Amino acid sequence: MLAGPYCTMVLADLGARVIKVERPGSGDDARQFGPFVDGRSAYFQSLNRGKQSIALDLKDAGDRAVLERLLDRADVLVENFRPGTLDALGFGWNDLHPRHPRLIYAAVSGFGRTGPYARRPAYDLVVQAMGGAMSLTGHPDGPPTRVGTSIGDITAGLFAAIGITSALVHRAATGRGMLVDVAMLDGQVAILENAIARYAATGQVPGPIGARHPSITPFDAFACADGHIVIAAGNDALFRALAGTIGRDDLPDNPLFRTNEDRTRHHLALKAELEAVLVTRPAAHWLGLLEAAGVPAGPINRIDQVLADPQVRARTMVVRAAPADGVGTITAGDGMLMAGNPVKLSAFPDPAVRAAAPDLDADRERILEELARPPKAGR
Amino acid sequence: MLAGPYCTMVLADLGARVIKVERPGSGDDARQFGPFVDGRSAYFQSLNRGKQSIALDLKDAGDRAVLERLLDRADVLVENFRPGTLDALGFGWNDLHPRHPRLIYAAVSGFGRTGPYARRPAYDLVVQAMGGAMSLTGHPDGPPTRVGTSIGDITAGLFAAIGITSALVHRAATGRGMLVDVAMLDGQVAILENAIARYAATGQVPGPIGARHPSITPFDAFACADGHIVIAAGNDALFRALAGTIGRDDLPDNPLFRTNEDRTRHHLALKAELEAVLVTRPAAHWLGLLEAAGVPAGPINRIDQVLADPQVRARTMVVRAAPADGVGTITAGDGMLMAGNPVKLSAFPDPAVRAAAPDLDADRERILEELARPPKAGR
Repeated sequence: MLAGPYCTMVLADLGARVIKVERPGSGDDARQFGPFVDGRSAYFQSLNRGKQSIALDLKDAGDRAVLERLLDRADVLVENFRPGTLDALGFGWNDLHPRHPRLIYAAVSGFGRTGPYARRPAYDLVVQAMGGAMSLTGHPDGPPTRVGTSIGDITAGLFAAIGITSALVHRAATGRGMLVDVAMLDGQVAILENAIARYAATGQVPGPIGARHPSITPFDAFACADGHIVIAAGNDALFRALAGTIGRDDLPDNPLFRTNEDRTRHHLALKAELEAVLVTRPAAHWLGLLEAAGVPAGPINRIDQVLADPQVRARTMVVRAAPADGVGTITAGDGMLMAGNPVKLSAFPDPAVRAAAPDLDADRERILEELARPPKAGR
Repeated sequence: MLAGPYCTMVLADLGARVIKVERPGSGDDARQFGPFVDGRSAYFQSLNRGKQSIALDLKDAGDRAVLERLLDRADVLVENFRPGTLDALGFGWNDLHPRHPRLIYAAVSGFGRTGPYARRPAYDLVVQAMGGAMSLTGHPDGPPTRVGTSIGDITAGLFAAIGITSALVHRAATGRGMLVDVAMLDGQVAILENAIARYAATGQVPGPIGARHPSITPFDAFACADGHIVIAAGNDALFRALAGTIGRDDLPDNPLFRTNEDRTRHHLALKAELEAVLVTRPAAHWLGLLEAAGVPAGPINRIDQVLADPQVRARTMVVRAAPADGVGTITAGDGMLMAGNPVKLSAFPDPAVRAAAPDLDADRERILEELARPPKAGR
């Protein structure tokens, strides 16, 4: 629902032609998710820009033949079903690899194609919980806290895109496709950073610690007169600069706060000292001074503030959907705002207007016509 | 510190030969981060397995010549400095591209190479705050909450790996390298999922909502007799299965809970109904029943529980560092546990024992010897 479409959106942003094969009738479930703009799902739009759509019934002989001809010409098949689903339809890796030896087959699932949980259903929340990310997120003794964006799906989509592009590099050298098997749960374990090594080294099980860093201090959210900011003073020089900026030059000489290790041990005492000053003036006042002093700091932006941020705008990280010229009959969601492409490549443009997501089956005629012609040379 | 090393670790796991160029004397700062095992940083080990190390002073003429000869043969340069730093040393993209037209130059920074904040310092916490992820994480009216793993760095590392492998595909066709410019802040915006589209469509600014999903219900953490579990009943059929499993077949017929939209509107009332039953028995009891009923659910695992999970083990998602045969003199951190490689490729093995991270400058002799020989054909 999310990991596969996110993966193919990243690839589309990088120039891949992506043909979305959907169930006839209602298509991708996400087309039904609100809110809607001009009758089209904003959720669906934000994951399917720049793609084409064809509706195929994989139990119909004619439609199966169309998929087979698409696979003759495709570089990659990306599927996001539970393991076994496409095998039952005759389009699993074991079916396709002999017939299409150059095809790269990328399977993204909750738990992967192997192991005792392979056939279990999963959603983002389940892998965030089982993979350990939730055990590190939130406040000590507070209620369970999900990471507020679907990193279970999204990181799986990113690892799948890495696997696919790597497999393309391999195929350029060998002429052979391969199977890319990515599990959402595996992706969660892979992003635990040093939590595993830390636990293995010390035997201490890490828990949630709010906005703080486990081993760098001060590196936290702090209350100002009108709300919170974050400050990340990652070494002694930055701590000295921070202390000077808020008029507390004495802090680095306090034996409680001399080294990063001291500061981490006494993080509560240090936070109280810092907030006692910070809370007297508004966030903007401190952010201006901290920037001038070269201390990493920033506002905790809401989504509306992210969209207005000058750096976000300068980097084309907010884009607008618009009808694609000559690509099917796309009219959906024109003008809708969504996140841009964070992979900036010097050999390609980074347009602020992107082709909108296709209506269901919008590209059928064009694709069928193309399949009736001989394939282009040089694939 | 993290984004660049994470990116190159992902590439090393996929078969790339990664040579880490470090400052003579102390090397990568992360070598100093605790906890330590046999005198070596667990943090550094968990990010640098399978790499080689050479210490080069980029202000020394001899060492500069060594780097230049390395770049003659390298496919990719990955750098993680503030924009401008390598330019000042004569190794920026504008210097290198004319001399090494096939070289792919990947620059990972806090804010990217363009825009008003380009030269500002950033840490993970700062981009999590500025990019909006923190505004979606935590509990309503609760204190600010950081995502408990460094997703600011890690997603930037993943997007950089995608850019690098894509640039390799492009180079296979054109023979030309390119610049890959990835910003941690851009990556945070890119993983906001549908939050931007939702805000743009409705004008409502999304906030933190605990462990709940904004538009799917029930999809939350729930208290059992001995702790919390997560349940993700993403559609009407799954909700009916959940209700049956806990002996509350009446719930789906209650007008408050009939559709997903109804359930989302009355999520507090529904949670109270569900927890009234769930809290009477332990988590394991309910997880067994929910699995049998096909309802996505799971435990909220701590790190020690993640390491013991049979699926995590079956997928080789916990690996052990061991000395690499014939690769320098690696002995550091033998046996240390760390996360495995989540990109499973059928054409390559997925070993449970990985080469440990190198000691500083461990591979100098080998690399200098290699550079004295003519390059292999066929690069």
